[in-house]
Amino acid sequence: MFYPDQKEAFAKLLTVVKGRRVAVLGHMRPDGDCIGSQIALTRVLLALGVDAVAVNRHPVPRDIEPIVQDTPFLLWDEFTSEDHIAINVDCADPIRVSQKLVDIFPQSLANIDHHISNPGYADINIIEPVSAATCEVLAGLFFDFDLPVDAVTAQALYVGIATDTGQFRFPSTTQQVFKICSRLMDCGASPNEAARHLFENERFNKLALLQRFLASLRLELEGRVCIGRLPLKAYHDTGAWREEAEGFVDYARDIAEVEIGILLEEYEDGTLKGSLRAKDAKYRVDQVAKFFGGGGHTCAAGFNVDSNIEKFYHEIVAKLEEHLADVAPVEV
Amino acid sequence: MFYPDQKEAFAKLLTVVKGRRVAVLGHMRPDGDCIGSQIALTRVLLALGVDAVAVNRHPVPRDIEPIVQDTPFLLWDEFTSEDHIAINVDCADPIRVSQKLVDIFPQSLANIDHHISNPGYADINIIEPVSAATCEVLAGLFFDFDLPVDAVTAQALYVGIATDTGQFRFPSTTQQVFKICSRLMDCGASPNEAARHLFENERFNKLALLQRFLASLRLELEGRVCIGRLPLKAYHDTGAWREEAEGFVDYARDIAEVEIGILLEEYEDGTLKGSLRAKDAKYRVDQVAKFFGGGGHTCAAGFNVDSNIEKFYHEIVAKLEEHLADVAPVEV
Ligand SMILES: [Mn+2]
Ligand SMILES: [Mn+2]
Repeated sequence: MFYPDQKEAFAKLLTVVKGRRVAVLGHMRPDGDCIGSQIALTRVLLALGVDAVAVNRHPVPRDIEPIVQDTPFLLWDEFTSEDHIAINVDCADPIRVSQKLVDIFPQSLANIDHHISNPGYADINIIEPVSAATCEVLAGLFFDFDLPVDAVTAQALYVGIATDTGQFRFPSTTQQVFKICSRLMDCGASPNEAARHLFENERFNKLALLQRFLASLRLELEGRVCIGRLPLKAYHDTGAWREEAEGFVDYARDIAEVEIGILLEEYEDGTLKGSLRAKDAKYRVDQVAKFFGGGGHTCAAGFNVDSNIEKFYHEIVAKLEEHLADVAPVEV
Repeated sequence: MFYPDQKEAFAKLLTVVKGRRVAVLGHMRPDGDCIGSQIALTRVLLALGVDAVAVNRHPVPRDIEPIVQDTPFLLWDEFTSEDHIAINVDCADPIRVSQKLVDIFPQSLANIDHHISNPGYADINIIEPVSAATCEVLAGLFFDFDLPVDAVTAQALYVGIATDTGQFRFPSTTQQVFKICSRLMDCGASPNEAARHLFENERFNKLALLQRFLASLRLELEGRVCIGRLPLKAYHDTGAWREEAEGFVDYARDIAEVEIGILLEEYEDGTLKGSLRAKDAKYRVDQVAKFFGGGGHTCAAGFNVDSNIEKFYHEIVAKLEEHLADVAPVEV
């Protein structure tokens, strides 16, 4: 068994949903793990004869869209509750489903997640912080309970795991992750098909934006920090979308001697978004982000300030200088 | 068992090497699968009491180097044969080990590989064309024979599989690949550690070159083709190495509407290297490459011509126009 400790909770969930209408809710600005979990749980419930539908505040991202297939998937304003009960997936906090959906579902029946910060806010809580993805948890439970995993479900679960592990790069990539992926392929998942829509579907505009970002990279503090800048003009000139800058900060962090990579982005409303990525947890970029009113994890954090790049650049460099002063460079 | 059909051949190999000195040879300009295979086989032979050493014509690439650890690994001119016998790994053709090493070892005892074109040129031939990597074949054989796989061996095998599957993206990523990776993690392999040296160790110069490449991208033939150009000046200005352009052509191919991505690189000797990548095998970029004196696979091919980008650009566009004329765009 993958999750013996969750046997009771999941069995209870399967009993409670019998004869009920179920809405499977995901978080705002959904990612692959969120969408994959919603698809998979909705389909398995349907296969068990439960009337289920996935409902989201925001649309499925373009690169994830191909995995939805014939799964019933609605936006919040297309959905009408007919005495539905809600199951939240991949949501560390109930408000992550959006205020609109909390208004419809003030209390969720169940909460399936892998975020350590999840307090267990539903009636039934299945939280596995060591798991790489909510999709890993669901896949494990489906296999433990011998539930029907069709090819679309398997592919959705695979995509959730692949995206939340950074394509099997993050420390969360355990031997159980690979074991489950192997089982998902037995059920019809295709890593190559996933890669094709996740990675071979870029807009030219995005590459133009990446080019601007790379041209802006600057090494600071003896090369321990690399900062990339995307002023408003970069978006205007290239026609790229905001979300297309996702992952750019990794290029800054991935330079050999660099310890912390940073992306500064200007917004139309006069604010500036900072993203910080560290190679080593000892840097506590969450503390740097907190200083500017943001937060996050030790190696990945962010913040928003009322400023622009020109004004803010030396502020962040000064703060980092202070922060790095006591931390010796990582030995490579 | 992972490879029941190879049981006899591998058992024979293990018998023949007993009491012999063994040189484990890899191919020129080695990749992760080649180095990983050499490390793994050398270490397992040593653990079995066989005097083994890995020998290569060219050095271990910088991003792969961390997996070598205490494995005996020599360059051809550091090696002196004392009645050694040779085992080739990941070499489709005996000459791939280099003329220098063929001069030392005119005939290899064994040949372990996953290239379909491998004719079986050694005394003992273990060729598994369906496998994603020679490291997958070796890992499977080691597990089948219950041989001692230490953490360094497991990590080397993992890196070979991760690199030859394009980090689990290529169609060669089978359920056996994931099963073996799971087993390798049981033996101490760390995907995160692999990712750190494979992906978080870039030179600033490389990103500067990538920026030049992205700035040069041009869509041709109604956007079905995207061409990037790296003139001599791009290398001179950035100080980037030739091998740092590896993978750039994927950025061109990965654009949504693009069917074929191309990279044109100028060399000091007045030649030009073309790299072609297609999304779909129906395009036969190997035929386009062949027209210019090169070759390769249906989706990945290359060629060298005596020309420069300015002169050659319209030639390749004209040839592609001809080639694409009869091929309908791929439905996405
Ligand atoms: Mn998640
Ligand atoms: Mn190989």
